[in-house]
Amino acid sequence: MDITIEFTPDPIVMPPAHLPSREIGAALEFHGIVRELENGSALAGLHYEAHEKMARRRLEQHLAELATLYPCVAIHCIHRLGWVPVGEASLYIRILSAHRGEGIALLAATIDRLKQDVPIWKMTQPSPPAP
Amino acid sequence: MDITIEFTPDPIVMPPAHLPSREIGAALEFHGIVRELENGSALAGLHYEAHEKMARRRLEQHLAELATLYPCVAIHCIHRLGWVPVGEASLYIRILSAHRGEGIALLAATIDRLKQDVPIWKMTQPSPPAP
Repeated sequence: MDITIEFTPDPIVMPPAHLPSREIGAALEFHGIVRELENGSALAGLHYEAHEKMARRRLEQHLAELATLYPCVAIHCIHRLGWVPVGEASLYIRILSAHRGEGIALLAATIDRLKQDVPIWKMTQPSPPAP
Repeated sequence: MDITIEFTPDPIVMPPAHLPSREIGAALEFHGIVRELENGSALAGLHYEAHEKMARRRLEQHLAELATLYPCVAIHCIHRLGWVPVGEASLYIRILSAHRGEGIALLAATIDRLKQDVPIWKMTQPSPPAP
């Protein structure tokens, strides 16, 4: 499985679509977007920080393990770091697979692992007070 | 849940991205792509036909039911009909939801229902012989 991991301080730009083989039957894309309400408080956005080297290594380990459970052709993960305002994406994942089943399973498992066991932290930021 | 269903004889063009609310935390997109190999035979593409009015009604019924199980904000389904060459999409689905869980579940269930219980048929077409 071809694995690409990127961290960026800038707004996420979807990588150009490209099908590396004629055996791909499913292309899945996920944008994780910052929501206005988090645990009942209104936010202006979230601030993300990562131990980038460790986060990359940990995510690579998880993806290598998940590739044996849900073999797909390629996965491309982009995580934005720093300040991300409400309505913008902090996470983008594209998965290419022969069939949809393993692609959907890999997507769900990758996001779970990212949230549970990769050193990326988010800090809530309340909305600015009304003028 | 906002439901949009389209059938088109033309290559699928992704509708413009638009977030209708600040409470959307997950945007999922799926392209179902025609693969070269189907049951071991090499194909040049697939030909899709539908009873369009019945297919739309049946899919609407399924989505109304699935919306109660996996409440999302919006789903947009585009199915291409007619000849679809290998490497091009016959199906596009975009789902917007507050959280990823219900979005991923709705995506998986929608494709299952589409394949099992919506009157759209595909006919295989062998590759043209080598010149």
